[in-house]
Amino acid sequence: MRYSFLVFENGSSYLCQMPMELTILGTSSATPTTTRHPSAQVLCIKNRLFMIDCGEGTQLQCMVHGVKFQRIERVFISHLHQDHYLGLLGIITTMNLNGRQEPFYIYGPKGLDEIMEVQFKWSSIVLNYALEFFELKDDGFQIIYDDEYLEVQSFPVKHRVPCWGFTFKEKSPFRNMKKGVAESKNIPIEAFKFLKSGEDYTSPDGVVFSFEELTELPKLSSYAYITDTIYLPELAPKLRGFDTIYHEATYLHDMLPKAEETFHSTAKQAAEFAAIAGCDTLILGHFSARYHEMGDHLLEATAVFKNTLIAEEGKSYAI
Amino acid sequence: MRYSFLVFENGSSYLCQMPMELTILGTSSATPTTTRHPSAQVLCIKNRLFMIDCGEGTQLQCMVHGVKFQRIERVFISHLHQDHYLGLLGIITTMNLNGRQEPFYIYGPKGLDEIMEVQFKWSSIVLNYALEFFELKDDGFQIIYDDEYLEVQSFPVKHRVPCWGFTFKEKSPFRNMKKGVAESKNIPIEAFKFLKSGEDYTSPDGVVFSFEELTELPKLSSYAYITDTIYLPELAPKLRGFDTIYHEATYLHDMLPKAEETFHSTAKQAAEFAAIAGCDTLILGHFSARYHEMGDHLLEATAVFKNTLIAEEGKSYAI
Repeated sequence: MRYSFLVFENGSSYLCQMPMELTILGTSSATPTTTRHPSAQVLCIKNRLFMIDCGEGTQLQCMVHGVKFQRIERVFISHLHQDHYLGLLGIITTMNLNGRQEPFYIYGPKGLDEIMEVQFKWSSIVLNYALEFFELKDDGFQIIYDDEYLEVQSFPVKHRVPCWGFTFKEKSPFRNMKKGVAESKNIPIEAFKFLKSGEDYTSPDGVVFSFEELTELPKLSSYAYITDTIYLPELAPKLRGFDTIYHEATYLHDMLPKAEETFHSTAKQAAEFAAIAGCDTLILGHFSARYHEMGDHLLEATAVFKNTLIAEEGKSYAI
Repeated sequence: MRYSFLVFENGSSYLCQMPMELTILGTSSATPTTTRHPSAQVLCIKNRLFMIDCGEGTQLQCMVHGVKFQRIERVFISHLHQDHYLGLLGIITTMNLNGRQEPFYIYGPKGLDEIMEVQFKWSSIVLNYALEFFELKDDGFQIIYDDEYLEVQSFPVKHRVPCWGFTFKEKSPFRNMKKGVAESKNIPIEAFKFLKSGEDYTSPDGVVFSFEELTELPKLSSYAYITDTIYLPELAPKLRGFDTIYHEATYLHDMLPKAEETFHSTAKQAAEFAAIAGCDTLILGHFSARYHEMGDHLLEATAVFKNTLIAEEGKSYAI
């Protein structure tokens, strides 16, 4: 019941299987194809849903892949190119038609609020729920959301328009009991909640047991999202220790000049970034419409960073 | 070769089979479903493409159903609810990325230009082609486009925001030769072009043949598009003689109060409209997400107007 207050009442019974789970909804770059949609993904963190980018058609992608977008709590928009935000208004209006009442929080670049407001004005939409907009700041890593269980940061990347990446770090106000230790010392179960909260336990006969002896820090998941950007190796050390990094790989490396001209990255560069950062897993996405299948991206990246995955729409990845 | 100047050079070899052919891309109302997309359709008139409404995801629907949207000449937007225009910017930017140079003409309500401009501003898009916007007027039937071969009119309907219907009437500057008559009178082929243009022919021995005797008016197609609107029987007589009318049928008639409250129509009302107008064919669309299949809409409408069709996505209808 620890997280029960975080579960939306109007949501379905959908629960993600892992503490942090990423569902990919779109893997195309600027132009969609008949098999790839514009950028969008949903991060499920202890059954709270967070959306990252929201290209055209994302509401339908949610329906097709079983993501209950009515339950999305916050959305993070990287930049104001159409393939990253055009689906937002459709989701907002459909949530409204479906009776949403919980507030919806949007984190995005300056201008996204004006884009939304102009459309609300002309369509005479009055929402049943509060929409709160937070403007991203172009000044290094910024904590843009923080609570007991989660910290979200934004950081600028380099694209043709202002663009940001995001990090999601699971937090826990509680430590975990070390397996078998409490039992071996006859610590009563009633004492566990104090120990987990970082308080020592004194037994009825006056023996003090340190919480550090009996508990340990839990394994906490972390995820970084990086699109659209030119290769930024100087950023990678700042993401050291992250479990999973999603990095755009619009082109193969033989198209490096095109990547640089359009402020995008290649599969090889994404892999080099992951190698510097030392993450566990790299997920590649944001593929140019010129590529029909992603085998070459995988080959190119795994030559540099072995644990690389190709983002597949509708697939969920444990972080 | 009569219409060769109308065929876009950059288009594919796609040709519509009939003088006027309608391809349905979206049949849902406000909320899409996994099988129905927001409103959008393409009217092919002598191989020129015209789009009517452009809901979210229309560019992908074009790709899926083989409509070369790069060849679309003009788009007509009925109103500024999201399910009717959200796909427009995606199509505009993809056409740009794909090298469009021909101008693109948008006919829509006041405000659509501001919605586009705000987004161009924030995404720093500079188009390779001209975008021309024509604001619809709330004053009865208005000719909004006219050339030798086609006349398009807009007319206001009644919805929760300003909303328009559109009529498309094929025109021809030429008459057709009556079958066998010229041959029976030994009229030389060289005279045909004058006769078709409405000039009499005088034979070398001085006999005058009237163009009316030798030619006839061609059969010209006409189409009317009506969505989203409360039932407007007073409008129907103004559409008398149209071949095909597309009319929204958001609800079945047992939901008439809901239809009236939301300024929509029922299948029965759409059929009554078609019966008053006396069109050849009625196509129903814009179905509420509450309906999973449209058998009841068809039953309800055909009881009033026999030649009713249910709009099916990806299907083309000869007008």
